[in-house]
Amino acid sequence: MLSLDKVFNAQTVLRNIVRETKLVRAYGIAPDCELYLKPENLQITGSFKVRGSAYKIAMLSEEEKQKGVIACSAGNHAQGVALAATKNGIKSLICLPDTAPISKVEATKGFGAEVCLVEGCYDDAYQKALELKESKGYTFVHPFDDENVIAGQGTIALEIFNDLDNIDAIVVPVGGGGLISGIAYTVKQICPQVKVYGVQAAGAPSMYNSVKCGEIESLSSVSTIADGIAVKKPGENTFALISEYVDEIALVSDDEVASAILALIEKQKMIAEGAGAAAVAAVMFDKFDLKGKRVVAVVSGGNIDVTSLSRVIDRGLLKSGRSTSLLIELIDKPGQLKDISRIIADCGGNVTGVHYEKGDTESVNGCFLRIDMETRDFDHVNLITKSLRAEGFKIV
Amino acid sequence: MLSLDKVFNAQTVLRNIVRETKLVRAYGIAPDCELYLKPENLQITGSFKVRGSAYKIAMLSEEEKQKGVIACSAGNHAQGVALAATKNGIKSLICLPDTAPISKVEATKGFGAEVCLVEGCYDDAYQKALELKESKGYTFVHPFDDENVIAGQGTIALEIFNDLDNIDAIVVPVGGGGLISGIAYTVKQICPQVKVYGVQAAGAPSMYNSVKCGEIESLSSVSTIADGIAVKKPGENTFALISEYVDEIALVSDDEVASAILALIEKQKMIAEGAGAAAVAAVMFDKFDLKGKRVVAVVSGGNIDVTSLSRVIDRGLLKSGRSTSLLIELIDKPGQLKDISRIIADCGGNVTGVHYEKGDTESVNGCFLRIDMETRDFDHVNLITKSLRAEGFKIV
Repeated sequence: MLSLDKVFNAQTVLRNIVRETKLVRAYGIAPDCELYLKPENLQITGSFKVRGSAYKIAMLSEEEKQKGVIACSAGNHAQGVALAATKNGIKSLICLPDTAPISKVEATKGFGAEVCLVEGCYDDAYQKALELKESKGYTFVHPFDDENVIAGQGTIALEIFNDLDNIDAIVVPVGGGGLISGIAYTVKQICPQVKVYGVQAAGAPSMYNSVKCGEIESLSSVSTIADGIAVKKPGENTFALISEYVDEIALVSDDEVASAILALIEKQKMIAEGAGAAAVAAVMFDKFDLKGKRVVAVVSGGNIDVTSLSRVIDRGLLKSGRSTSLLIELIDKPGQLKDISRIIADCGGNVTGVHYEKGDTESVNGCFLRIDMETRDFDHVNLITKSLRAEGFKIV
Repeated sequence: MLSLDKVFNAQTVLRNIVRETKLVRAYGIAPDCELYLKPENLQITGSFKVRGSAYKIAMLSEEEKQKGVIACSAGNHAQGVALAATKNGIKSLICLPDTAPISKVEATKGFGAEVCLVEGCYDDAYQKALELKESKGYTFVHPFDDENVIAGQGTIALEIFNDLDNIDAIVVPVGGGGLISGIAYTVKQICPQVKVYGVQAAGAPSMYNSVKCGEIESLSSVSTIADGIAVKKPGENTFALISEYVDEIALVSDDEVASAILALIEKQKMIAEGAGAAAVAAVMFDKFDLKGKRVVAVVSGGNIDVTSLSRVIDRGLLKSGRSTSLLIELIDKPGQLKDISRIIADCGGNVTGVHYEKGDTESVNGCFLRIDMETRDFDHVNLITKSLRAEGFKIV
């Protein structure tokens, strides 16, 4: 059974393994409330996950410890288990599908785990992990549906209360539900008047649907940039705890998550992964009634690969008018590119790409010119398009 | 005169204005030494600059405070002065060239300053600021060459010593020299055996050259992505302090700085601006003898605009084999794109752009195909190019 004693015990046990991440006051992200961030992206291993697995592992019997632990994950859980096992001086084996990005495999090895690459997808790796657990006697460390794992995540609530008084609400990302179960349980034992809100990705609303229906529902597929909370089926323990202790769950879209990632970069100089930015996205886009309130949003992790980050930033630039791409139809005659370049330069636009193509233009002598450029904002984009139109160019 | 008393006094005065940023142990960035970061990018205003200006402003007479302060800056100094003035309840006026990015103007206003946009470049804005100082009686807050500003920056050294014992070296970015002057002076009064190393951008080596020559030298131009330390002429106070207290200064290239920005994102989930990453770059690329040493690198700021960040990331991806662009010469006949797409897909490459162009090919029926794609690493790039060549495609 989960108990407050376990959470306090976890805090003591974790003291030399995890970082106590200090709340950060976030200005300019959500002007209508007093927002603080719990930056678990700055946690060792880049995610809160290490808390739960480290407490789980510390609580194993000597015999279990001697045999070692096994887990199946391509992400934050793998790194958490690996580090926790290494710090406890025991062996860990992580099963991964052989399609996992090499960077994640290397990171997991870097924390001291042995990696077993399994041909196929996540489910194949999971089956292999269960087989090895049986045949070798390893203890399986579940990523969320385990009371010691949940107690470990609950230590986040203790740290929050230690840092800040008079909190109105804590907003937490929800995947399998381990993080919010630990936090909500702890919060409601200590300060039941503090609201605990959960946030899921609109493309993976398994817990949201389950709580709404009053029973566990599985999704056949999930699709979101917040891959850390893309879980098809909630846990049984977590479903029960969330049903009892969480005040409300809301959904955020991928574009809202991307905006939150950008805001955290620009305003807080912090990298969050999609799941890590979900709670901030919910606050930014008014998913709960938080006006005038003192709010803590948990930034659960920061392990986003740089390619995805680059895409999020590019999309954010486009969506905020800081980059633009114009398709201009013109008559194919000398001097046109010169004129267009001059107009854009005079307006202060910075050309980053030029593509020239024939196509289905009105005139037989027509062609298309695509110009990519850096701009200041939408007003700047409008200034450039107006200036081009004023000199007779046709923007498609 | 600068004194240790002043630095300690600054620490007391700044207590309710600035954040005490805690050292962060950085794993995986520089495996040969025990590296800690002093994350002033997480400072309020996103840069250490607020320390110096806040102490300077706090030390003004009541009469000076009533008249207000003026500064000239398009960057971190402006925001530092603005916030420090607002926190002290006094007026601040910031002169900016009218070409300054709108985001910086808004950020400066957001901290409570009045902004005076001056037609022309930085030098014009500076002249205007001096004029206004004379005519209105404002106090001019120099960005670095002022003993109270330097004492404020020195508080960083006190915080570092408070956090960590047995430090061998502290590595600090150098622009005008205010930051390193404050740190080096404080360090050498308290723990003279701790080395203090400075880092400048190779494209703006004004202090490096001056210290080498033994007298202040000005540069006619500067060019670096580390714009926060792109200073043409060192200060007189800072030059004297650095000559006396700094052990060594080294230079880093823009590509080294970009690698450091990427490493901080991937390993520490932190955004640094170019200047902010310069000290980390020097540690990563072995500019000083730090093997086996306990080292603190000051990450001085995180105010990089997202457009620049996007470029740094894109370049980093290309330089590490995580994106690539192939130019393939082919005979213009049906089915070629299909074959190329199949080969790339079979190898696990992810196509992000396709450009088709005629050009100076060997055959009259030839054409060029440029394919942009996401790749895992250089081995993956090689696998794809080999597979294409094996089926007869010619990569230019």
